[in-house]
Amino acid sequence: MKKRLVLALGGNALQKNGEVTAEAQKKVANIVGSVVANLADKYEIVVAHGNGPQVGNILIHEEQGSTDKAPAMPLETAVAMSQGQIGYWLTQAIHNAFAKKNMHRKVATIISQVVVDVNDPAFDNPTKPIGQFYNEKQAKALAKVNHWTVKEDAGRGWRRVVASPKPIDIVEKRTIRELIKDGVIVIAAGGGGIPVYRTKVLKRLKGIDAVIDKDFAAERLAEEVKANIFVSVTAVPNAYINFGQPNAQAIHKITTKELKKYTDAGYFKAGSMLPKIEATIKFANKPGNIGIITDIDHLAEALTGKAGTIITK
Amino acid sequence: MKKRLVLALGGNALQKNGEVTAEAQKKVANIVGSVVANLADKYEIVVAHGNGPQVGNILIHEEQGSTDKAPAMPLETAVAMSQGQIGYWLTQAIHNAFAKKNMHRKVATIISQVVVDVNDPAFDNPTKPIGQFYNEKQAKALAKVNHWTVKEDAGRGWRRVVASPKPIDIVEKRTIRELIKDGVIVIAAGGGGIPVYRTKVLKRLKGIDAVIDKDFAAERLAEEVKANIFVSVTAVPNAYINFGQPNAQAIHKITTKELKKYTDAGYFKAGSMLPKIEATIKFANKPGNIGIITDIDHLAEALTGKAGTIITK
Repeated sequence: MKKRLVLALGGNALQKNGEVTAEAQKKVANIVGSVVANLADKYEIVVAHGNGPQVGNILIHEEQGSTDKAPAMPLETAVAMSQGQIGYWLTQAIHNAFAKKNMHRKVATIISQVVVDVNDPAFDNPTKPIGQFYNEKQAKALAKVNHWTVKEDAGRGWRRVVASPKPIDIVEKRTIRELIKDGVIVIAAGGGGIPVYRTKVLKRLKGIDAVIDKDFAAERLAEEVKANIFVSVTAVPNAYINFGQPNAQAIHKITTKELKKYTDAGYFKAGSMLPKIEATIKFANKPGNIGIITDIDHLAEALTGKAGTIITK
Repeated sequence: MKKRLVLALGGNALQKNGEVTAEAQKKVANIVGSVVANLADKYEIVVAHGNGPQVGNILIHEEQGSTDKAPAMPLETAVAMSQGQIGYWLTQAIHNAFAKKNMHRKVATIISQVVVDVNDPAFDNPTKPIGQFYNEKQAKALAKVNHWTVKEDAGRGWRRVVASPKPIDIVEKRTIRELIKDGVIVIAAGGGGIPVYRTKVLKRLKGIDAVIDKDFAAERLAEEVKANIFVSVTAVPNAYINFGQPNAQAIHKITTKELKKYTDAGYFKAGSMLPKIEATIKFANKPGNIGIITDIDHLAEALTGKAGTIITK
């Protein structure tokens, strides 16, 4: 029986060397596509992905072009738009990677709503960076005009930040499970999912402006579909102790307990490596589960235990 | 056994009384949701939808806000974005309509690519109106700046027009079939589908800037999923002979042969009622199939044969 694999792709990863056109992002998607196609013999695959820079650009366009006749869409709807956008690129790229092998496999993007708690303390303290980088002055000026909260992001510049509540449930989980059983390679929970909450009366779903961390949402999804392996696919081949410093040290194989110690000691940056570490620890805490952090180039090797940061209980 | 029903919703229908905010469009989606939820006991339901005004507004925003750092997305990707947007609204609305009945049913939007022929003559003669209405002067000025083709649209004003090639195939058809079998209410082929063509070498899929007529795409989908009933849900309760004139006459029950006579005699307007008529004729030409043209308020009645324009062979 095939093992079940959930990949969480960084939204930044699609914009290699800062190239942000649709054409450039499709080229990166093609690389993901051929990696996925090569793994599909051995694994049932679900691809989740981030959308930070993409939804940021959608919001910028929506806001700058907003008129009474064509009003800007709210963030939750913009997340849905980014799921369509990136999901389309990935679906087509994976399809084409199979075509290159003269094969056909079903591939589908499911628009995904992810339930959050309206009382999540995150709503009082927005922390999730989205959209372009600005210098401090620009960022503070934009914040004033657009009622944004802006913050400095991991040494890379200033960005808009929005609330990042924890994912509680994935509305489309049953459908996603059926699709995996039917042999479909599924793209789901894009951008961490469209943030929704359940109303008290009648448990209706309602969208809410927030961005759910894509690693937490993808990990939630990995649990819901009973995945065996969860990979946070990022820009670096490993997680590192003392990242970016002369004494940086790649982490290869590690237990959740050991990794937790480094986390508690503050070795990983919030909004960057920390959520990937926390999500993989959460997943790997279940005996038998494997959590991996690596980049797309080392993914296949990491799955054979020869590269990447590999986390087990 | 339940009958299988494909609904093709007009993109304009979501913007009731010209209200174009996300909030207003969600309210209209809620009406669609409760109609769908009421029909789900008797029918397996697939919802296709248009995206004319929505993708038009996305394009306006993308173009007006375009910079080197956040470049505009091309039309084909904008169609994918509109599938995410409208698909999300419909998914949530249908989910909530079931919640209101204290029920749960799986509902899912599938990002859908629709194959066209690159040699389709439509590419030499763009005819599909998208985006906002303008007066003649505005339209011609915009055409000049943006290299658009603009045309007068069925007496309602001027709009941008793009190529509208015929749908040949729906890439995700196998997945959609599986989902219907699994009891999922599927939203697919939004906006007529993301237009793609197959490359000669290796049959890879490539996006192409065009808009596929949503009625033709939905009809193609209805054939692919072997639907029994295809409904083009529009703004009026029936198709009419002499529409908008003092001697206007609603068509109730009619054969494909009879309806074809009216079509050939030029009774229906291109870009408005004509594609709905042509799509329903195509569908109903298969013995046993039923094609219907009506509005959302008369849909349930039309399905019992008591309202709408009902087309059979």
